[in-house]
Amino acid sequence: CELGDSDLWLVKTWQQKAGSSCRERSVNSALTGSGPSSLSFRSHTCGELRPEHVGEVVTVCGWVQYLRHDLFIILRDFSGLTQILIPQEESRHFSKSFITDHALAVILPCTYQQRMPTGEIEVHAESVEVFSVCRKLPFEIKDFVKKSESLRMQYRYLDLRSSQMQNNLRLRSQMVMKMREYLCNVHGFVDVETPTLFKRTPGGAKEFLVPSREPGRFYSLPQSPQQFKQLLMVAGIDRYFQVARCYRDEGSKPDRQPEFTQVDIEMSFVDQTGIMSLVEGLLQYSWPAEKGPIKVPFQTMTYEEAMRDYGVDKPDTRFSMKLIDLREVFLSTEIQFLRTALNQPGGSVQAICVPSGAKLFTGKELENLKQTAKTQFGQELSELLFRVDGTLKSPLKKFLPASSTDELLKRTGAKPGDLLLMAAGSLHSVRSLLGSVRLQCAELLGSHGFPFRDLSAFQFLWVVDFPLFLPKEDELEQLESAHHPFTAPVPEDTPLLYTDPHKVRGQHYDLVLNGCEIGGGSIRIHKASEQLYVLENILKEDPSLLSHLLEALDSGAPPHGGIALGLDRLISIMVGAASIRDVIAFPKSFRGHDLMSQAPDLVSDEELKSYHISVRWPTEQRGDEGK
Amino acid sequence: CELGDSDLWLVKTWQQKAGSSCRERSVNSALTGSGPSSLSFRSHTCGELRPEHVGEVVTVCGWVQYLRHDLFIILRDFSGLTQILIPQEESRHFSKSFITDHALAVILPCTYQQRMPTGEIEVHAESVEVFSVCRKLPFEIKDFVKKSESLRMQYRYLDLRSSQMQNNLRLRSQMVMKMREYLCNVHGFVDVETPTLFKRTPGGAKEFLVPSREPGRFYSLPQSPQQFKQLLMVAGIDRYFQVARCYRDEGSKPDRQPEFTQVDIEMSFVDQTGIMSLVEGLLQYSWPAEKGPIKVPFQTMTYEEAMRDYGVDKPDTRFSMKLIDLREVFLSTEIQFLRTALNQPGGSVQAICVPSGAKLFTGKELENLKQTAKTQFGQELSELLFRVDGTLKSPLKKFLPASSTDELLKRTGAKPGDLLLMAAGSLHSVRSLLGSVRLQCAELLGSHGFPFRDLSAFQFLWVVDFPLFLPKEDELEQLESAHHPFTAPVPEDTPLLYTDPHKVRGQHYDLVLNGCEIGGGSIRIHKASEQLYVLENILKEDPSLLSHLLEALDSGAPPHGGIALGLDRLISIMVGAASIRDVIAFPKSFRGHDLMSQAPDLVSDEELKSYHISVRWPTEQRGDEGK
Repeated sequence: CELGDSDLWLVKTWQQKAGSSCRERSVNSALTGSGPSSLSFRSHTCGELRPEHVGEVVTVCGWVQYLRHDLFIILRDFSGLTQILIPQEESRHFSKSFITDHALAVILPCTYQQRMPTGEIEVHAESVEVFSVCRKLPFEIKDFVKKSESLRMQYRYLDLRSSQMQNNLRLRSQMVMKMREYLCNVHGFVDVETPTLFKRTPGGAKEFLVPSREPGRFYSLPQSPQQFKQLLMVAGIDRYFQVARCYRDEGSKPDRQPEFTQVDIEMSFVDQTGIMSLVEGLLQYSWPAEKGPIKVPFQTMTYEEAMRDYGVDKPDTRFSMKLIDLREVFLSTEIQFLRTALNQPGGSVQAICVPSGAKLFTGKELENLKQTAKTQFGQELSELLFRVDGTLKSPLKKFLPASSTDELLKRTGAKPGDLLLMAAGSLHSVRSLLGSVRLQCAELLGSHGFPFRDLSAFQFLWVVDFPLFLPKEDELEQLESAHHPFTAPVPEDTPLLYTDPHKVRGQHYDLVLNGCEIGGGSIRIHKASEQLYVLENILKEDPSLLSHLLEALDSGAPPHGGIALGLDRLISIMVGAASIRDVIAFPKSFRGHDLMSQAPDLVSDEELKSYHISVRWPTEQRGDEGK
Repeated sequence: CELGDSDLWLVKTWQQKAGSSCRERSVNSALTGSGPSSLSFRSHTCGELRPEHVGEVVTVCGWVQYLRHDLFIILRDFSGLTQILIPQEESRHFSKSFITDHALAVILPCTYQQRMPTGEIEVHAESVEVFSVCRKLPFEIKDFVKKSESLRMQYRYLDLRSSQMQNNLRLRSQMVMKMREYLCNVHGFVDVETPTLFKRTPGGAKEFLVPSREPGRFYSLPQSPQQFKQLLMVAGIDRYFQVARCYRDEGSKPDRQPEFTQVDIEMSFVDQTGIMSLVEGLLQYSWPAEKGPIKVPFQTMTYEEAMRDYGVDKPDTRFSMKLIDLREVFLSTEIQFLRTALNQPGGSVQAICVPSGAKLFTGKELENLKQTAKTQFGQELSELLFRVDGTLKSPLKKFLPASSTDELLKRTGAKPGDLLLMAAGSLHSVRSLLGSVRLQCAELLGSHGFPFRDLSAFQFLWVVDFPLFLPKEDELEQLESAHHPFTAPVPEDTPLLYTDPHKVRGQHYDLVLNGCEIGGGSIRIHKASEQLYVLENILKEDPSLLSHLLEALDSGAPPHGGIALGLDRLISIMVGAASIRDVIAFPKSFRGHDLMSQAPDLVSDEELKSYHISVRWPTEQRGDEGK
């Protein structure tokens, strides 16, 4: 690089500006202005130069994208590219070996030119200043350059220069700003910051610990501001929201982050309808125009309907392919495993009909689907292919009388070329399996180019009327909260709390977008006696850990409820990102590491002393490192 | 309480609303509306009822403030009080023993009435619903009720019901919202969330640790997003801001919080003038109208001027009472301790003139001032009282020739009734002492009712041209950063970096409000070689701990700078709160405890196991608790 050590060329106008003494500031501060170039060395961003600027003297700042014919610099900033003709006397500093991504600024009168797609403008530089020379980068900042996830994470400050990441972070910022406007300015909500150094919550196994300087005493980083938002309602704050940092220590879960952000909302004197309307208005108001309008109210479905038709409580409603009950078809079948399933209590035979599945899916794809059913769900998946010529191909064919086949076609609406995938067993397991198979088939159809679901569509859906309690997975006799222990029962189900708690529905609502849960909330129990009963008698938990909350509810608590929206997930679906890591500036790897700074890191024994803790090294490493 | 168990009376209109099925929602969601009562059971807040509402049917919700003549409920919500006439058939439920702070709602047509100061409105209740009965509270929710700090903290959800705390939290929310509008909407800033689980920074002794599930490896909760904001500039984010949660483990410092909030700002392609203008615009834009306008640009003072005139780097400029150098007066004095001071290198004799101090201060107050000087500063403070009759009273009087006294009066401008307080010693110690005495005297003058400084005034002040490095307190040969190691030198001082680093001034600016530092920032070093030189050769720190930042600077870093404003402190001064605890919803005690939930708390050994740590109990407690 010919620039050598002359890596900073101050041009006159800036020397004056940078060196101006503070006493001259009264003059400057009148010139504050507004917009993306206010208060800056630049007068315009690269992307905003238009034919109407021709003849103006402008200053742009940015990074060298590349050089052209040793005559032009293509300069990049967040807003786009612009082509700059270098003055002859300065072009000697540049050559083909000129490294890209120098940060520089250009002062220039500009003239019209047609070639650049982004602006139709060519800038004729009067002078060029190199602010900062760039080393050879580990990867080029070009959209088509593929780089590994770990390289992107290690050099995140370079990865963020890509137009995609710039767009994701800027869109996120704009959407959050609109959300705040809606909550604060339209509906009078109060933005309250709640503590993150808190007490461990009952059963808070996923909460990070923070040692204090008192021996044996720890703070805990809470998973959500749940307790605080309810306390704020008791405190008369009335309408609370917070874009809240939350923490969850789940070890290595794909596409989860140890710290994440939720839009946390709580209201007093409100019912379920009020919260749902608020959230619909919130998303409609803040949704970026470029993503197309969204319609409110959102579709609403009960938990029971979702499970029945889609096999999951967060259905992707961008396509149908619903679960079809085939009990009636197979009531008197001779096929043994179907009869066994139907004869057991709560047994079921169901199928989904994959349009064009028989035509499009390869044998290997079908085999993979069946294999996954076996390994992940421990179940058999039976296929029935309706060939384009109208014939049936299936291992079950020989056991199926014509009447059954007709009935099957009628019930499922299968057409020539379609594929039926069938499962038999307990209702719960059949639903789980087919709910998952349905999504896999949608993926496959997409990969075959079948115009099946609109990938640019945003299908919001409320799921309501969840059961308040579910049997614990490892201890079926014992109930646990489907949402959390503070959720209130549906009013007409309240008496069942004391007689048949498993039949009680909760005032709990989940918000689903394209098959992902992006929010969940509930109307809360606001009476101390009811909350105590739920904790003590139904959940068998020690209420003393929540004594402050119970006392608060006993102090004139208003009826209240709220919701939390998962901001990272919502934005990632909105921008079509593959992972939530693509909408977070500095995410952790799936093992919870910061690959740029190497956190978490070893800490000296001396530093641990003030927190009265020591490391328990696993025996095979004892005394090895860091001690 | 006659209410007994009838603590929830549903009135008809709400039963319909609460029970409305989700399928009816399309009708309701058209009625979203806006304002503080949108989507709510209530139609109006208590404070907004006005004569123009007379005759309307309104619904209000709130807490019972008190009962009057067994006929009226005074109902309170965040917006104020309203008087409600109870219908006869329901008044039997209420009595003098009725406990206040029941949460309830009232549906009513209302009629005009003159008595209430807040609204001139009396509401005639058609029906009253008690949502929730209140236990006997540990203190009444009345502004005149005094309660201890610890009681307030233990029952924070009740303390927050006070009009003062409601006002503080709501004003804070509104001001932050306006700040966001200014940064995002006016100047195109991007709100980026940076991680709080990070790597320990060099010398980060005040950083909380967070154990990970990998043996011996810890995250650290950073004191500020400093590294991330600079990396975002390298990443081309260009204009970043964040209302950032920060953490500082300082044990027990009065009026500090282990977690606090700063308005964190960073810009590329900007100089000191740009950042200062931005912040002036920010505060002017977001300042609440009710606090009166603030004038920009703010006064600017160099560090040297501040130290010379006020003895501190964060002067309270609401009043003068500047430090006066008396070297000339005492050059040939016979007073031994003054001569000794003046003869030592860098020695000084200085005084402040306290207007009316001789008239107003008691002997005991003077004695206290001198005592504090001795115990806290190890120095003698000499007093000279100019009596109202024009005579001088001072232990030094007999050593002062008339010419000296005249010269003293001339130099200090002392008038009859004024008090001179004088100190002698090294320049540094004289300034520290008199800077502190000056503030104590201002307090005293205020307590005597002397109209000396305007307590409702907001005096913003920039302090600039700080030295870049200061000698370490415990090792005078070694330099440390006055601000932080990333601050750039003033351009014309840059060559001194390599020859006389202690003479270099930094591009560092502090924002002071009424004598409190509420913000600090700088233009940063954006060249890797310069940053490396400062870390390695001047600060003698291990640069490998910051290798990711150095690499980033070497990747085409733009010139950049920023600032961080201490939000808690700024708001507390704005609302006139005694402590930052009064502008934080759930603060910790000065020992870092949450008195409501009892955090930090003991954690079982089992829970610690997954983090590979164990508690090092102090020997006198070994094996006692929690094990």
